[in-house]
Amino acid sequence: MRGILFVMSGPSGAGKTTIVKAVMSELEGIEFSVSYTTRPKREDEVDGVDYFFVDEKTFKSLIKKGEFLEWAEVHGHLYGTSMNFVESRLNDGINMLLDVDVKGALNIKKIFKDDVFIFVAPPSFKELKDRLIKRHTEDPNNFEKRIEDAKFELSQISKFDYLIVNRDISTAVKQIESIIISEQLRVSRLAEFVGKYNFYKSKDGADL
Amino acid sequence: MRGILFVMSGPSGAGKTTIVKAVMSELEGIEFSVSYTTRPKREDEVDGVDYFFVDEKTFKSLIKKGEFLEWAEVHGHLYGTSMNFVESRLNDGINMLLDVDVKGALNIKKIFKDDVFIFVAPPSFKELKDRLIKRHTEDPNNFEKRIEDAKFELSQISKFDYLIVNRDISTAVKQIESIIISEQLRVSRLAEFVGKYNFYKSKDGADL
Repeated sequence: MRGILFVMSGPSGAGKTTIVKAVMSELEGIEFSVSYTTRPKREDEVDGVDYFFVDEKTFKSLIKKGEFLEWAEVHGHLYGTSMNFVESRLNDGINMLLDVDVKGALNIKKIFKDDVFIFVAPPSFKELKDRLIKRHTEDPNNFEKRIEDAKFELSQISKFDYLIVNRDISTAVKQIESIIISEQLRVSRLAEFVGKYNFYKSKDGADL
Repeated sequence: MRGILFVMSGPSGAGKTTIVKAVMSELEGIEFSVSYTTRPKREDEVDGVDYFFVDEKTFKSLIKKGEFLEWAEVHGHLYGTSMNFVESRLNDGINMLLDVDVKGALNIKKIFKDDVFIFVAPPSFKELKDRLIKRHTEDPNNFEKRIEDAKFELSQISKFDYLIVNRDISTAVKQIESIIISEQLRVSRLAEFVGKYNFYKSKDGADL
């Protein structure tokens, strides 16, 4: 059976990265799709694990080759998801987790209509501002721009399947886990098992 | 916010009763809806906890009063779910778990279209037969009838939202828990929060 693509999105400062790290270390049966970016590597990040860090020239040649499922410029840097990588893993039956910005998620939804789109929101707008201020690596000049972006992004929640309000990390991880487990049980994804054949019959009609 | 109705169904011998007991003792935030029945009480059952055990005359007067959300005759006995009880609990914001036969579930689905319908299936048809044989309380004359009923019921899976194949009880309980958690996160159920107002604005427009 094909794997399921879980696309996690939300404004900067919602805590997506922390959730992804906890999900990947605590949960089994799901793989993280590493994105490409031209953004400078932060100190605690690892190339090939957090992102593939590339320069702008390399990134643009990948765009030309049609390599990206989605790509976007976010706060002056380019981010992209490798189409070949994601599709081949899904076809191998592996569930994939993607962490992309809201516009990227909505672009992916045009192609992967039946997959799962999760919006992660901070507990309040004040909390979002506080988190952006605390994040030392952010350029303070970008702050107002990020607030405006967050307002747009929060207006897009209705286009997602699930909303997680990130009040504490352990609850958020448990919620993501629940979504991953329950989506695999959806009858609409099990058509090959519950289709025209009797559920317990093999194709030659024998009881299983 | 209104509670969610989780309707669990499946053939006799799928292990629904065992799952319900484990769910109710292990999980929080969900209440079991006790059904009415004219079936004789089994030794380990408690009136008002497992079922409300009533005689046929009482049951039929409840039908006349329109008290039942659904009722059905299953293997010669009457089973019914109290409409008033379920609706008032849902309106109080309480999530409810119902354990009903497949026909009953499909009747409830006509009224509660947006609620959650879970089909519990045994791991194989052979396992289903074995479980029915092992169940000492069953009338052996009913065995063939139950097998035929099970075949019909298994053909109805596509009308449900989720399929749980009950291979072991702890996995099944975890799966039910995941469905209960994730359904509460569905954006389609959160319209009052993510509707026309900005997610973080109160009705007078102030940031929350």
